[in-house]
Amino acid sequence: MKSIVLATLATASLMASSLVETATNAGLSPIPESKTELYKLIDNPKNPITEEKVALGKKLFFDPRLSKSGLISCNFCHNLSEGGDDGVRAAIGHKWTVNPHNLNSPTVYNAVFAGSQFWDGRDPDLEKQAQGPIQAAPEMAATKEHVVKTVNSMPEYVRAFKKAYGKNVKINFVKITDTIANFERTLVTPSRFDDFMNGCPGAMSKAEKKGMQTFIDKGCATCHNGVALGGSMQPFGITAKYKYAKGDFKGDKNGLVKVPTLRNLSSTAPYFHNGGTYSLKVAVIEMGRIQLGMKINDKDASSIVTFLKALDGRKPHMLTPMLPASTDTTPKPNLN
Amino acid sequence: MKSIVLATLATASLMASSLVETATNAGLSPIPESKTELYKLIDNPKNPITEEKVALGKKLFFDPRLSKSGLISCNFCHNLSEGGDDGVRAAIGHKWTVNPHNLNSPTVYNAVFAGSQFWDGRDPDLEKQAQGPIQAAPEMAATKEHVVKTVNSMPEYVRAFKKAYGKNVKINFVKITDTIANFERTLVTPSRFDDFMNGCPGAMSKAEKKGMQTFIDKGCATCHNGVALGGSMQPFGITAKYKYAKGDFKGDKNGLVKVPTLRNLSSTAPYFHNGGTYSLKVAVIEMGRIQLGMKINDKDASSIVTFLKALDGRKPHMLTPMLPASTDTTPKPNLN
Repeated sequence: MKSIVLATLATASLMASSLVETATNAGLSPIPESKTELYKLIDNPKNPITEEKVALGKKLFFDPRLSKSGLISCNFCHNLSEGGDDGVRAAIGHKWTVNPHNLNSPTVYNAVFAGSQFWDGRDPDLEKQAQGPIQAAPEMAATKEHVVKTVNSMPEYVRAFKKAYGKNVKINFVKITDTIANFERTLVTPSRFDDFMNGCPGAMSKAEKKGMQTFIDKGCATCHNGVALGGSMQPFGITAKYKYAKGDFKGDKNGLVKVPTLRNLSSTAPYFHNGGTYSLKVAVIEMGRIQLGMKINDKDASSIVTFLKALDGRKPHMLTPMLPASTDTTPKPNLN
Repeated sequence: MKSIVLATLATASLMASSLVETATNAGLSPIPESKTELYKLIDNPKNPITEEKVALGKKLFFDPRLSKSGLISCNFCHNLSEGGDDGVRAAIGHKWTVNPHNLNSPTVYNAVFAGSQFWDGRDPDLEKQAQGPIQAAPEMAATKEHVVKTVNSMPEYVRAFKKAYGKNVKINFVKITDTIANFERTLVTPSRFDDFMNGCPGAMSKAEKKGMQTFIDKGCATCHNGVALGGSMQPFGITAKYKYAKGDFKGDKNGLVKVPTLRNLSSTAPYFHNGGTYSLKVAVIEMGRIQLGMKINDKDASSIVTFLKALDGRKPHMLTPMLPASTDTTPKPNLN
């Protein structure tokens, strides 16, 4: 009896290691367990992650006073209590403006693993990305001067910058956005998929493993690969026209569109660059139709969705930041 | 030498205890240090504070999906990372609507100590208050049905309600808002003023103590008293017309206006029911003019402001809540 159990376990383990191999060959990678390996992926040699920068960057990320209105922080569209996004089809910003290209706020969780930032991939990294929405009129609508003046008006921020970068630090716009990006680089969410890939065969259920095999067999990993299971620029609507098309977004100059990460899909609906659908299964079927030229049947789509839920990650525990008080020189909110 | 030091300390202590007595006689009360005494002030016998309710109420407080748009949580106007308010003159809500009566979002910190809620005091407690803004068209703009359906659509919320209230709980609108209020009851911020009043003479500086004496001497404690240093309904504009008047707000049916708490003023500008000024000193002088019929000179106003800063409290450390994922039955955001 014991030998049968052992043999069964051994077979299960063998099957698991074979699936890990299949997944690895298909280009899927886990978030590394070792901090050293993780930091090779998330750290920025030009602006290394430090505890001081992350703590400060977190405050700035949550500070609505960086926006023109004083009401919209980075966290408004990239809500860390939700999926690192906002749950609406197209981003809403200053004066309740809908994103002019109907673009959906991508999650900031695991964004560090993407090859580029924004749906048209126009920025290479989080540092550059962080400069955009703060200044964009339909988002935070601030000028660089507003941001710099706001941060410099609060002695607690100034002290924190000195602590993070040395006493001669010049707190300019780039330093501020670099610090926000430093925090964002730490927003990674290891999941049961990662545990499985990192050598724990029991971390994923049998149904999830089956779904993973289906995911790979259907060709989803052609684009959804790497640690992000996404993050590269790819053609969109290869075999058919995207059925939820709306507005003028056409991707980058070559028509390529950033592949979204598949991590934390349970909390990042609606899906696609314009939030075309709230149904993950519908999204899977649409992807098969327009990217792979195949009809993914209901059973296979459900199986793939079952796998995708194994990518729901463990979000970092973090204390709600307490922001410095405004001073007489802090720019006043402007709602117009 | 030693005896001189001891004598000086004894005098200082005597002076402090005399000031505590003066303050007590003027109606100022500290937040009690003892949890038992504190709970006598903050607990609701009809809905006692429990760890389970507070944890759940915190999630609901931070959940923007309770609003019609899916974007505005309680925390949007009562931002716990700031002063428990939003820093703008008049509250902004659904579709960027300005509060139609130009009313400023009051801080939720220490709101439990107020005798009534809202600027016109129309609700007796936080439980009743929590029902208002969720449904108000210019705020969260939700229907009761939306809120109830949203919460019931997420198994994690349903489980948490059962854990908090027992397995037969009916998760209706009142139960949801009562739970939010349960969390809000815990948002108290003991300050150096409280430490001083509770028997620690060194907790306040000499200048702050002087300011406190000035505050009492000028008559500010006539309205700003109790644990909240405010929270009762009082006439407004007794000796002169309020110079920042704007819009149609006239107080309650007797023309009385809720006295705002003086706690955490450093992070709750702008001041007055319509956010008339961002300057605390200007606010102090205006109060003297229109409530006390006196010109508070610059020196005295500065001294009072110095005291008021001793009321900046220690905000609770709290983990950023991670909200349950939406499901297929969760109502979709409606931005219109």
